[in-house]
Amino acid sequence: MLTTKIYGPRDIRVEEVPDPVILTDDDAVLRTVACCVCGSDLWPYRGISQTVEPHGIGHELIATVEALGKNVTSVKVGDFVIVPFSLNDGTCQECLAGETASCQNCTFMGGLDRQGHPMDGAQTQMVRIPLAQASLFPVGLTVDEARERGLIPHLLTLADVMSTGYHAALGGQVKEGDVVAVVGDGAVGLCAVIAAKLRGATRIIAMSRHEDRAALARRFGATDVVAERGAEAADAIKKLLDGDLVDVALECVGTQESMEQAFAVTRGGGRIGFVGVPHGPELNINEMFSRNIAIGGGMASARVHMEELLPKVLSGEIEPGLVFDLTLPLTEAPEAYKAMDERRAIKVLLEP
Amino acid sequence: MLTTKIYGPRDIRVEEVPDPVILTDDDAVLRTVACCVCGSDLWPYRGISQTVEPHGIGHELIATVEALGKNVTSVKVGDFVIVPFSLNDGTCQECLAGETASCQNCTFMGGLDRQGHPMDGAQTQMVRIPLAQASLFPVGLTVDEARERGLIPHLLTLADVMSTGYHAALGGQVKEGDVVAVVGDGAVGLCAVIAAKLRGATRIIAMSRHEDRAALARRFGATDVVAERGAEAADAIKKLLDGDLVDVALECVGTQESMEQAFAVTRGGGRIGFVGVPHGPELNINEMFSRNIAIGGGMASARVHMEELLPKVLSGEIEPGLVFDLTLPLTEAPEAYKAMDERRAIKVLLEP
Repeated sequence: MLTTKIYGPRDIRVEEVPDPVILTDDDAVLRTVACCVCGSDLWPYRGISQTVEPHGIGHELIATVEALGKNVTSVKVGDFVIVPFSLNDGTCQECLAGETASCQNCTFMGGLDRQGHPMDGAQTQMVRIPLAQASLFPVGLTVDEARERGLIPHLLTLADVMSTGYHAALGGQVKEGDVVAVVGDGAVGLCAVIAAKLRGATRIIAMSRHEDRAALARRFGATDVVAERGAEAADAIKKLLDGDLVDVALECVGTQESMEQAFAVTRGGGRIGFVGVPHGPELNINEMFSRNIAIGGGMASARVHMEELLPKVLSGEIEPGLVFDLTLPLTEAPEAYKAMDERRAIKVLLEP
Repeated sequence: MLTTKIYGPRDIRVEEVPDPVILTDDDAVLRTVACCVCGSDLWPYRGISQTVEPHGIGHELIATVEALGKNVTSVKVGDFVIVPFSLNDGTCQECLAGETASCQNCTFMGGLDRQGHPMDGAQTQMVRIPLAQASLFPVGLTVDEARERGLIPHLLTLADVMSTGYHAALGGQVKEGDVVAVVGDGAVGLCAVIAAKLRGATRIIAMSRHEDRAALARRFGATDVVAERGAEAADAIKKLLDGDLVDVALECVGTQESMEQAFAVTRGGGRIGFVGVPHGPELNINEMFSRNIAIGGGMASARVHMEELLPKVLSGEIEPGLVFDLTLPLTEAPEAYKAMDERRAIKVLLEP
């Protein structure tokens, strides 16, 4: 089969490797229906995170079940499933509390499983998934049915970006009637707009300076777009809100600048939902104390959120798959990274 | 009248000064019924916060209304009122959102009002209170009725410590069935035990190594007491909880050590409510991200929380005034500080 590996900064290769096989009784082997490139894959691509040795990359896929270890009874061979970007055991305190991303045996595609076996990344034709019993989530449709209804891209977002955007809204405790600002206009930020609307926000300000992304944000439910940054962004928001700031900011980038932006636009007593993988931001606890700003979020429990989000995808209430503005064959994974790195594409779907 | 001032580290003086008078139409002049010393008053007393020049100190009192500026219609002369430790304007975005501690015109006793007039501290016989319209909260009883029913100490805690303990529980999003640890066994920590119980926590672990405080924590609803600190505390809690950690930790101290303690005992996906005035703690955003730990709290909106808490004091459901284990006349304020500094008293009530 073909699979994608990262060798170092800007060095993505699609390679022929042996098909994966069941290694433990808790494994599943899947055949990819669609996978994609994540904004967080760009950190090692850009050399901001280090790649010590070549490894599989990608963590978002939807797939059909090819084979199952004997402990896996939650899905059947042939099922069409969504794979959450973090795999979980389903039995620890955190899993039982619905916090699957904080599973004590949390495992990631492209890394090592709990027995130390290397795992393929999700940008691949086939993949071995450990902890399959608790991790895999059956769509309840066949692939053909999903294709006919145009659902493939939407389903794929539940593996990460839509679930992560939803996690931002939960972390920020967005509730009915809130005014929300979304910092970051990548795929996660755009999905956070959808999530803020789902949670009942009545005014959603997308912070974007890219016309195509701003347009998609509006389609997803943003009522306003602010292109300014820093103190000017806060001023622009005050102008929109008759002198007020927002109840909740959703931080979907992970940098010092984006975190400061989130704090700058949030009113005293407000909340910040953060899901951008942190690359350096520091939290000012004195400001959090004196301004009473709460912060929650982190790595999304996609496996849990997709249970709530799947019915909304199936009913057509949400269309998060619109974040994919480029589709390429898996063999062109290097070009997919390039297009996202150069901001020619918001998010690239790869067909196996 | 007599009022208390701080001159520098361990230099507390009770002085004769002119009675306060109404300076603006938004003022009230009050006569103290009871006031007290706060754990946070010990920071300047110990020289950890600097005292640049002598000023009034203390921020907790209950009092009767002596005189009112003409804009103040929410209370009448003679009313028995609780004064929240932070004064608020009642009109800004934050006040309207119920976040009075984040008021854009937030003002503190012992500091300067918005016009630059110096304000008495609350350890005083009389006090001028600006922003009186929104800040003062009528008890609905006469002082004599409250005294007869033994409510004076309980009512006094609503000015700060009980409201602050409650704020910790709200910041930590304590809900029905939660397992909660309280870090800090001062008056606020003890009130946080009460608050956790009010919010429905079914297991409350007080972290205390002082027998008297631990006993009071148990009386307030703590189901367990853990004397260990650091990694040993987490181990002790795991032993109590069959290997689990707590859903929520309430951080009621404000140091690096106490914040780390709160993180160490909280499960992935858990929450930390923090109300200790920060003296140096740093937040590890990478841990917050990977373990999905949310943090909320800060300065308590006492004016709002007391509306919810007063009925519970009046009905006898909660008895937070038990945190006062020493009562002294105002003239002995220096001894009150000494007793708390040396941990001979949890909290000292001062009679004017």
